[in-house]
Amino acid sequence: MEKESGQPLYLRIADRMEAMIDSGSLRAGDRIPSVRHSSLQHQVSIPTVMQAYTLLESRRLIEARPKSGFYVRPRLSSSLREPVVSKRRPAVASLSGFASAISMIQDITDPKLVPLGAAIPGAGLLPEKKLAQLTASVMRRSTAASLQYDPAPGCLALRKELSRLSLDWGCGLDASDFLITVGASEALHLALLAVTKPGDTVLVESPTYYGTLNLLALLKLKVIAVPSSSGEGLDMNAVKNVLAAHPVAAMLVIPNFSNPMGSLMPEANRRELLGLAEKHNIPIIEDDIYGDLPHEGPRPHCLKSLDRGDRVILCGSYSKTLAPGFRIGYIAAGKHQARVMELKNAFNLGGASLPALTVAEFLRTGGYERHLRKLRDTLRHQVCKMREAVAAVFPEGTRLSNPSGGFVLWLELPGNTDIMAVFHEARAAGISFSPGPLFSPNGGFKNCLRLSCGSPWSPKMESALGTLAGIIARQAPPTPKR
Amino acid sequence: MEKESGQPLYLRIADRMEAMIDSGSLRAGDRIPSVRHSSLQHQVSIPTVMQAYTLLESRRLIEARPKSGFYVRPRLSSSLREPVVSKRRPAVASLSGFASAISMIQDITDPKLVPLGAAIPGAGLLPEKKLAQLTASVMRRSTAASLQYDPAPGCLALRKELSRLSLDWGCGLDASDFLITVGASEALHLALLAVTKPGDTVLVESPTYYGTLNLLALLKLKVIAVPSSSGEGLDMNAVKNVLAAHPVAAMLVIPNFSNPMGSLMPEANRRELLGLAEKHNIPIIEDDIYGDLPHEGPRPHCLKSLDRGDRVILCGSYSKTLAPGFRIGYIAAGKHQARVMELKNAFNLGGASLPALTVAEFLRTGGYERHLRKLRDTLRHQVCKMREAVAAVFPEGTRLSNPSGGFVLWLELPGNTDIMAVFHEARAAGISFSPGPLFSPNGGFKNCLRLSCGSPWSPKMESALGTLAGIIARQAPPTPKR
Repeated sequence: MEKESGQPLYLRIADRMEAMIDSGSLRAGDRIPSVRHSSLQHQVSIPTVMQAYTLLESRRLIEARPKSGFYVRPRLSSSLREPVVSKRRPAVASLSGFASAISMIQDITDPKLVPLGAAIPGAGLLPEKKLAQLTASVMRRSTAASLQYDPAPGCLALRKELSRLSLDWGCGLDASDFLITVGASEALHLALLAVTKPGDTVLVESPTYYGTLNLLALLKLKVIAVPSSSGEGLDMNAVKNVLAAHPVAAMLVIPNFSNPMGSLMPEANRRELLGLAEKHNIPIIEDDIYGDLPHEGPRPHCLKSLDRGDRVILCGSYSKTLAPGFRIGYIAAGKHQARVMELKNAFNLGGASLPALTVAEFLRTGGYERHLRKLRDTLRHQVCKMREAVAAVFPEGTRLSNPSGGFVLWLELPGNTDIMAVFHEARAAGISFSPGPLFSPNGGFKNCLRLSCGSPWSPKMESALGTLAGIIARQAPPTPKR
Repeated sequence: MEKESGQPLYLRIADRMEAMIDSGSLRAGDRIPSVRHSSLQHQVSIPTVMQAYTLLESRRLIEARPKSGFYVRPRLSSSLREPVVSKRRPAVASLSGFASAISMIQDITDPKLVPLGAAIPGAGLLPEKKLAQLTASVMRRSTAASLQYDPAPGCLALRKELSRLSLDWGCGLDASDFLITVGASEALHLALLAVTKPGDTVLVESPTYYGTLNLLALLKLKVIAVPSSSGEGLDMNAVKNVLAAHPVAAMLVIPNFSNPMGSLMPEANRRELLGLAEKHNIPIIEDDIYGDLPHEGPRPHCLKSLDRGDRVILCGSYSKTLAPGFRIGYIAAGKHQARVMELKNAFNLGGASLPALTVAEFLRTGGYERHLRKLRDTLRHQVCKMREAVAAVFPEGTRLSNPSGGFVLWLELPGNTDIMAVFHEARAAGISFSPGPLFSPNGGFKNCLRLSCGSPWSPKMESALGTLAGIIARQAPPTPKR
């Protein structure tokens, strides 16, 4: 760029970039050119570019992310705030009426619905070609192993890869520490059977994933749901008070990108949680299914990495990153591993061999890290776009989570919205989402919902969000402006 | 064959065939040429051939099988008899000490052992090439479906094939009657959870499959084990008496080729069992995993086919006929189906998609019937050879089941044999088998064992059987001849 008189250079660069953002050439969540790249492109010095970027930051148009560069900010209404954390004292709930609610969300495989419900990575996000190629080659080269039983602890090749990857989780687990499961669901099932008995109380986050509540209900467990925020996850004061007041058999937590809040539990809170577990002699079940999906920065460590007393049972899977339908999960249950193995072999004598061998091969040779980088970027972008759209079309007073990872959003609608009425009307209009009461043991969160951002952002999605906003507006007349 | 003076023609034919059997050209279990074929080959009349074959039958060298032809009989010692059915009155057993026993049979994947233990169809018996080809083509043509979740009830294409096949089982079930499971093990798990609660008593066969006893133990169920014979399966008088005397929550039976007895329950007994279930208002769980593997004649109907009162929960799988490692089983739970579906989705959110789609494709296009014909023939032959070898080398007084289907043999050794001592010594010698106490809720069958005939008969197998006989002989000195 040639020097021009009048306007300072950095201002010119900033204005040009703002115009690109306004016109949509640069969209929310897009990474803007690096300082070095812009310096070369515009033939100006690096400090000048920095000045321009700082200005754009102060205009709240872009944001810096550590070690990652500058990104276009979602253009959110300034009134959009995060959901309120309940101040009510948590109480033990029986879940006796919960299981029936699950029937409402049997929409995973219905292609006619706009998929804002189940948390599934959408078409095009999974490494389809690579997996198809690896499946065929594993089946050809290891036919006998692919057809034979794979009894617990399951596929050694896969457990070796997990062992290697666990270094990134801060754990350094051995292949023998793992047992392969049918998704993280089975891992949670086995973990709960290992450390609880019917009638016991399990501490969970509030809101928490309905699949977990459903499982707890079927195992005849009670829950005590402790408020969790979009920022820091579990309210540690509340945890402390609950443990002091109630006998709790186990804690089931999602420190890395909780579902539905998307929060990342700070390290100090993790240490405090482990201290409390130690003090009260309680096992912790860690659901790490979203751990590989931070929106920025390196993969967070597992709670398990801080576990010195063999209290944490780690559960995870490749359902959110590689192939939901492969049903490849894992559990590292420490001192409970023998029991878990016994249960697993009795329940189904091991999972399918071929998917396990294929995932092992993908992790070993398929460029999983490269795939993850792309996937994280896409999911972050989709979450950004969804937040933007919600901010643009949802009623004033809507509160919205600001997740640090994963791909779901938690929304709190203006107080008098009846979300179940919205749910049924939206289903009739071909739109699925997960209503708030599914995330509560006793029908709470009546004005909340979870939106999945797993599918590519598209005009169809945008239009569905508009329709949904319309349904909500009819259910909840706007409160008078203050 | 030219007419010759002196010896009648039929006698000449019979002698020549006997020589072929003696020399091993025709082996136990081989089908001998049809009457029509022999008539053409030897250029003699059909009645002459019939006369020769009748003579061979009376010499106990061949046997006729209805609609199937003539087969070389196993050359068993005339002293070899079937196992004794216990006359002791069945009692409720708690299974509290059972689960630990299962650890002894973790040999499924140990290639260093001669595989007489787990009931697995051996190398070369499965349609490896066809399955590899179908897997690759399903994955290529239906990549998205292969990677996506397949929540319960699971793969519709597979349930449609099951519906079609169920006509052969005498059932005529609809696709909506089925739910796909992770092998028959998971089907049994779900069935038991649907109709029992911890502390309940379940009626099973004695001896019965250790996997079932292990599962019952982990579900904290009690059992009452009713004697089962190699000929007719469950002793119906004993069933009647047990049901009159004990509260029983469910009956878990294997009418088609029970494991380990190999018995086929006669139709009259099936009707009586259903009548008793009706009278006492008890559900029946039918394990039909071996139903596709009769040694002769058509596939037997399921008990479910006679079920007029929706009392029978049918469980089965393709683990014994297509691919153990695909973990494709099914359950048809009738009025319990909704409950079973709820449990299945909570436990693991459906099984792996690709194996289900592949099995569906195999059943639809892969020549399953043709594969079964070959597999049945091979397994029958292997069972024959094993029986022959046992008869030849095992101690006098050994009793041996005479299965009508499946591929396991049940042996009762002379009274003072300590089978666990034999088991450990055999393992040290590189031979696996399933010791009798695994098939009893309370350590019974101390002098019994199950041998799997799933692997091809070979000199290595024959030699292993000799080694095993030697170990047994040292453990149980021969009883003096009577």
